[in-house]
Amino acid sequence: MEPVLLGAVTILALLEQAYFSLQVIYARRKYSVSPPNTTGSPEFNRVYRAQANCSEYFPLFITAMWIAGMFFNEGLSCVGGVLYLFGRLQYFWGYSTSPQGRLAPLYFCAKILWALIGCSALGILLSFSKLYLDTDLLLITADA
Amino acid sequence: MEPVLLGAVTILALLEQAYFSLQVIYARRKYSVSPPNTTGSPEFNRVYRAQANCSEYFPLFITAMWIAGMFFNEGLSCVGGVLYLFGRLQYFWGYSTSPQGRLAPLYFCAKILWALIGCSALGILLSFSKLYLDTDLLLITADA
Amino acid sequence: MEPVLLGAVTILALLEQAYFSLQVIYARRKYSVSPPNTTGSPEFNRVYRAQANCSEYFPLFITAMWIAGMFFNEGLSCVGGVLYLFGRLQYFWGYSTSPQGRLAPLYFCAKILWALIGCSALGILLSFSKLYLDTDLLLITADA
Ligand SMILES: N[C@@H](CCC(=O)N[C@@H](CS)C(=O)NCC(=O)O)C(=O)O
Ligand SMILES: N[C@@H](CCC(=O)N[C@@H](CS)C(=O)NCC(=O)O)C(=O)O
Ligand SMILES: N[C@@H](CCC(=O)N[C@@H](CS)C(=O)NCC(=O)O)C(=O)O
Repeated sequence: MEPVLLGAVTILALLEQAYFSLQVIYARRKYSVSPPNTTGSPEFNRVYRAQANCSEYFPLFITAMWIAGMFFNEGLSCVGGVLYLFGRLQYFWGYSTSPQGRLAPLYFCAKILWALIGCSALGILLSFSKLYLDTDLLLITADA
Repeated sequence: MEPVLLGAVTILALLEQAYFSLQVIYARRKYSVSPPNTTGSPEFNRVYRAQANCSEYFPLFITAMWIAGMFFNEGLSCVGGVLYLFGRLQYFWGYSTSPQGRLAPLYFCAKILWALIGCSALGILLSFSKLYLDTDLLLITADA
Repeated sequence: MEPVLLGAVTILALLEQAYFSLQVIYARRKYSVSPPNTTGSPEFNRVYRAQANCSEYFPLFITAMWIAGMFFNEGLSCVGGVLYLFGRLQYFWGYSTSPQGRLAPLYFCAKILWALIGCSALGILLSFSKLYLDTDLLLITADA
């Protein structure tokens, strides 16, 4: 089994999500918000939403990183992946502090995610033209 | 790396989710619902929930499409995938307009998802009998 | 295509999530909570949150099980997977009954998830040292 680096970054992503979940559990205790409630003081709401937002994007991120890594370039995708995870940590801490604190890291993460989606699309295009059109687009571009 | 078509539909799915997220961001501005709040006017709530529901099903959809595509039939799964994504677009627009507007596309998407899960199960069954029972169920059926 | 057992457990996971979704739809009818609303009587809120929590962890679970299964040991990961899904069923039923009812199954599921993440990390470490350091850590440990 080969894509070891993608696997390693994926484990980092899992650990980060576990950390976010634990923070929500601590915030539930600290601000006395018992399940099934999901709202309380503004402080709690921000921690809760920070984790919810990261969870919502987790599948998109994992999918984009793996497609980019398998079809385009594993190393590059993993660098993107680590940057994204770093950005999400900043997002979580920023959002926990104030709603404004989430914005800069959010823009950063969005850019990385778009880059991963772009690399995925490029990789699929190259593989597609090789597999179905028997054409190596990279060679054509190099010739031009 | 082979499953190019599955990869292509997956990228479509990512773009669709990005579109839904952007619509929520626009709706937050239009109806003045600042994070960490998640409720406001009924119009906002519908857009917010439409995206939330699509996000919730995204991992199920991707998983079902890939298992069906890898173990059963890639082309068929991708056709199912494109139909599902089309249905989700209708769901999002329908739900944004009225709660009733979500129903017809939802039933459509549910049917496709069940079909993908069914194809996954069939594919796993065929692979299982080949790998572990050394039996080709398709040949047996063809003989009968 | 090989990882048949992982595929089989994944289909189980999809069926379980479908079951949870249907329970929310029934609860919406029973307790008259029409979309886009997501809160109502405590009974409804618990069913709603039980499904939401399971959905939130679904991508983490699938990811951890597949990485552990591909890089460490497929059979072991699938046993973990089945136990996790069993625990999630208990979580859903327990949470639907009372907030306290979710706790024991939650701890159980968390332990399994940590075990899967641990196996993933171990598998990645072994593959990494083989692929990049040309060292078989298992042999070294056996020699020691
Ligand atoms: N979204 C979760 C994240 C953390 C978590 O998994 N919490 C456990 C233990 S408090 C839980 O059962 N949460 C109940 C729920 O999500 O409704 C939460 O809001 O609590
Ligand atoms: N579920 C998100 C979808 C769009 C999104 O990612 N929004 C960004 C920029 S407004 C965000 O940080 N949302 C805060 C949140 O999800 O609590 C939302 O409700 O806003
Ligand atoms: N989270 C969903 C789970 C079940 C589901 O998918 N329900 C469909 C049919 S009632 C739906 O369109 N739900 C609207 C929503 O999620 O806002 C819910 O709350 O309803």
